[in-house]
Amino acid sequence: MPGSRPKLEVCLSPALLNLYDTKDTVVVIIDIFRATSTIAAALHNGATRVIPVASVAECIDLGKQISNSITAGERDGKIAEGLEHGNSPSEYPADFVKGKTLVLTTTNGTRLLHMVKDAATIITGSFLNLEAVCDFLAKQNRNVLLACSAWKDRFNLEDTLFAGAVASLLQDQYDINCDSTRAAMYIYNASGGKDIISFLKESSHYKRLAAYGLEQDMEYCASLNLHPVVPILRGTELVVF
Amino acid sequence: MPGSRPKLEVCLSPALLNLYDTKDTVVVIIDIFRATSTIAAALHNGATRVIPVASVAECIDLGKQISNSITAGERDGKIAEGLEHGNSPSEYPADFVKGKTLVLTTTNGTRLLHMVKDAATIITGSFLNLEAVCDFLAKQNRNVLLACSAWKDRFNLEDTLFAGAVASLLQDQYDINCDSTRAAMYIYNASGGKDIISFLKESSHYKRLAAYGLEQDMEYCASLNLHPVVPILRGTELVVF
Repeated sequence: MPGSRPKLEVCLSPALLNLYDTKDTVVVIIDIFRATSTIAAALHNGATRVIPVASVAECIDLGKQISNSITAGERDGKIAEGLEHGNSPSEYPADFVKGKTLVLTTTNGTRLLHMVKDAATIITGSFLNLEAVCDFLAKQNRNVLLACSAWKDRFNLEDTLFAGAVASLLQDQYDINCDSTRAAMYIYNASGGKDIISFLKESSHYKRLAAYGLEQDMEYCASLNLHPVVPILRGTELVVF
Repeated sequence: MPGSRPKLEVCLSPALLNLYDTKDTVVVIIDIFRATSTIAAALHNGATRVIPVASVAECIDLGKQISNSITAGERDGKIAEGLEHGNSPSEYPADFVKGKTLVLTTTNGTRLLHMVKDAATIITGSFLNLEAVCDFLAKQNRNVLLACSAWKDRFNLEDTLFAGAVASLLQDQYDINCDSTRAAMYIYNASGGKDIISFLKESSHYKRLAAYGLEQDMEYCASLNLHPVVPILRGTELVVF
């Protein structure tokens, strides 16, 4: 019966976040290329926590304060000056990241994460942990907002595609009366749901990152369920649920 | 050759308009339910001009100043207090509207129209004049922004569907590197491009207006090429190009 189920909505850009009520909601932060993919990989490979920060300066600062930490982040497709590592999920295998704190600065994803203030729960989602995210949501019995990080506030295809995947997989459990969600589901249907990377090769962000030679990275980000963890925000850090 | 063609972009909500450069661009204002549908109908049926205004007070005021004018507008699906007519395209047949000025107040569409300041040309689009709009754009050889009025800044399916129709019909003539445009085209593909109204019955706005008994109105708005005119903004009024 519609109305008795919790609702599921999709926010297509941080610039539209003010239109949604996030109070008591589970918010899923989505930044497929590449923040939330890297977060899933690092935590699944044994990092104790990921601390997302907005600026390179803050990243360097925190890295000095925390023992056994890695500072990471890119600007314009290159490791940012003063940091040690990049924003690629493949850079964080278990033998490197296990037991460490990853201090990660990204632009779009981190900004959105810091914008959500009053949610019941904040988790991060990516194709690498799609099923784990869906399983988690299905057990919450709460309203859900799938929040796309976008690109400098511009709608992007990869985050929306992921939102459409989640909405399509969970549609029977939620009351969906949100045109953004319907649009995301149409886009997911158009992709066929399997060969994610071929579908995303047409996207602006793919083309932008491919120009930096990051094709393999994006292929990694488009792999399904390689890192089945649920990164959940506790205070200022993301840990495995 | 990509790059030598003008570009075509889609803005999904007035809240995202600041991300787009409208200078020297042809902007198509889209408010399918129902402002830009009503504008096409009224002008095609012989209204000399349509003056879109933001408030009911302004509408009443202008109506008094202009002889042979009709004041029109709705709030919450009913004719607004102090105005004479509603916001339905079927209310403006030739024997009523011919030779008159329609002063029309709407919320979403009018607001967006007034937000665009520096475009080369502003026209309005709807399914009722889809082909006329496409023919017009094809002759301009300029960058195009398809601007969706949305619903109180929220993404909506019907405006995006129309943007997808235009983009699909004109894709060979433009350089398209905009994920919003790709998304709109996927949505248009999903609709099949023919039975527009069946597709839109799932949309939030359809459900909202259907609750006011406006199903026939929306069916009218979903009819293809019934009013083949191009409403173009000259100063503060829309006239037939």
